[in-house]
Amino acid sequence: MPRENAKALAEAQIRGLVDDWAKAIRAKDAGGVRAHYAPASVTFDLAPPLISTGADAQGLQVWFATWQGPIGYEIRDLNITAGDDVAFCHGLNRLSGTKTDGEKADVWFRQTLCLRKVEGEWRIAHQHESVPFYMDGSFRAAVDLKP
Amino acid sequence: MPRENAKALAEAQIRGLVDDWAKAIRAKDAGGVRAHYAPASVTFDLAPPLISTGADAQGLQVWFATWQGPIGYEIRDLNITAGDDVAFCHGLNRLSGTKTDGEKADVWFRQTLCLRKVEGEWRIAHQHESVPFYMDGSFRAAVDLKP
Repeated sequence: MPRENAKALAEAQIRGLVDDWAKAIRAKDAGGVRAHYAPASVTFDLAPPLISTGADAQGLQVWFATWQGPIGYEIRDLNITAGDDVAFCHGLNRLSGTKTDGEKADVWFRQTLCLRKVEGEWRIAHQHESVPFYMDGSFRAAVDLKP
Repeated sequence: MPRENAKALAEAQIRGLVDDWAKAIRAKDAGGVRAHYAPASVTFDLAPPLISTGADAQGLQVWFATWQGPIGYEIRDLNITAGDDVAFCHGLNRLSGTKTDGEKADVWFRQTLCLRKVEGEWRIAHQHESVPFYMDGSFRAAVDLKP
């Protein structure tokens, strides 16, 4: 396959993977979410700790249970760079919905997904999600920013 | 070159690039820092905004000028995954020193660097730096965590 066609195919495969993964989050399907990860994936999450390793479908299920009904999950401006067996993509994501305590959540954050091929299939090997924080001495997370 | 040798070479090249880049930060050499980026690189920074695009050596020089003397910059557990022309790496970084107003800074944060080859040289195409934030209602950035 010509190199440019291979890159276009890889990008389409990764876009499909990210779409499926986001659908699983909206449906609060922890197993469906975790199926897209490589073994020993490394996550830099919105919440502490600094770093976590490996699939944690149980932790995800606990987190899903803190939401009333489906979760709103939008991915904007997904930018994909794919090589033969290593790729990365980044975008701005919006997480929204109602927590079980009635709190309304609606936050935009940055997401980077790094992927590698595992037995011929693209898998998420590293995930980094964050908001910046205000450097005004408040050290407040900038959860109020919009793209 | 056998595939495994090519991967080892790419990893060594990227480790060298990250070392040089960190040295330029410590020396407050804005041009030296920016020389390692691909055109139209996308940055998710510790401080707002959510996203910024392209080299900004001038902004970096202004930021460097807010520090007294050299900047402390340590990179721990740098984990590199390299393909033929796309790669990514992640680690935990420590930024420390004294600001010109006398404030002592010492923070650990997560860093993801995504790279691609530009005219045969590895360049940083995407940079994501962050700390998590406390989900206790304070929305306080977790600048006190240590690996």
